[in-house]
Amino acid sequence: MKIAVLGTGRVGGVLGKRWARAGHEVVFGTRLPGSEKVAALLAEAGPSARAAAPRDAVSHAGVVVMALPWNIAQEELTKHDLAGKVLVDCTNPLNATFTGLDLGFDTSAAEAIAGWAKGARVVKAFNTVSAAAMADPTFGGQPATMFYCGDDDQAKQIVGKLAEELGFEPIDAGPLSMARYLEPLAMLYIHLAMKGWGSSCAFKVIRR
Amino acid sequence: MKIAVLGTGRVGGVLGKRWARAGHEVVFGTRLPGSEKVAALLAEAGPSARAAAPRDAVSHAGVVVMALPWNIAQEELTKHDLAGKVLVDCTNPLNATFTGLDLGFDTSAAEAIAGWAKGARVVKAFNTVSAAAMADPTFGGQPATMFYCGDDDQAKQIVGKLAEELGFEPIDAGPLSMARYLEPLAMLYIHLAMKGWGSSCAFKVIRR
Repeated sequence: MKIAVLGTGRVGGVLGKRWARAGHEVVFGTRLPGSEKVAALLAEAGPSARAAAPRDAVSHAGVVVMALPWNIAQEELTKHDLAGKVLVDCTNPLNATFTGLDLGFDTSAAEAIAGWAKGARVVKAFNTVSAAAMADPTFGGQPATMFYCGDDDQAKQIVGKLAEELGFEPIDAGPLSMARYLEPLAMLYIHLAMKGWGSSCAFKVIRR
Repeated sequence: MKIAVLGTGRVGGVLGKRWARAGHEVVFGTRLPGSEKVAALLAEAGPSARAAAPRDAVSHAGVVVMALPWNIAQEELTKHDLAGKVLVDCTNPLNATFTGLDLGFDTSAAEAIAGWAKGARVVKAFNTVSAAAMADPTFGGQPATMFYCGDDDQAKQIVGKLAEELGFEPIDAGPLSMARYLEPLAMLYIHLAMKGWGSSCAFKVIRR
């Protein structure tokens, strides 16, 4: 699969690296493809990864992973032609003090992003776990749950499979509007992490 | 502990029954204390349980469990003197079609209830699991997590202990305003349940 990862921070870095190691063709989209930080990331990611300007990264990919901060999402996404592409929205619409969300209830970051990324097949995913959990989704021998939602079934299947390849148990949470509940779940995680749990915990759906 | 349970539906019924069996003094507050339904519930709950008019139930209790539907919460809670009592808010502010919440984002049912129940020490709890999970919180050998939140630490300790007695792993999710995230979590559960998982699943925080 050809995957563009927008963002070389902790989330984009670990996702791109792990998918590259699993054999996917990964292009990190970054304004500084020649920087030391990116060189170090590419060295870890191996031969299936490279870096390019965001426009080039996106144009060659079928799957685009949005792992940039929420406050630059609109500016970045409106620059690209994302029509027909699977757009994986990993953002959370955190406010400036990380104490709450910028929007919610009758909308969500995912729905706003779907409005900005014209024609993209948006799937909300990877927003309810830490970067540490993306590096290793196994907690006490059990895979953490990766909730995802979206309005395009085929796009959701692709994202569910990508989550499974990392070691998550993917759970389809329904249409894109379910992001109204997945983004608050991220706030619950952030609150637990800030209370001292750090990144050493994750959510799981357990069953009988 | 003296516990008044407002509501003899599935949630109030199972919570009151199990706490009565554990030896707590439980009074179900109901307008129909002599009904067949209530008699059957009391027979199951055993000698530590009785039924009374809501006013009498509340007046003798240190802990009041609000297990009535959201749409009658205001009318019911403003009838009682709840000052100083631990008020366990099990509600979710479901809309009329159960497809979403009536309020949220910068408020929550729990915060609204704290406004109506003057002086009560409100703890949000038991809103993110099914009644079936309250009857048996063990899923595949593991206890489900019971998230709770509130602004009164002593009240939270009491509720955490009551959850633990039922077999849950209690997790303090912070101040009462965290209900803004616990109520959306209930919507995520409801959506999964309606997609076919029924009541055979629950949330758990897993750790390293």
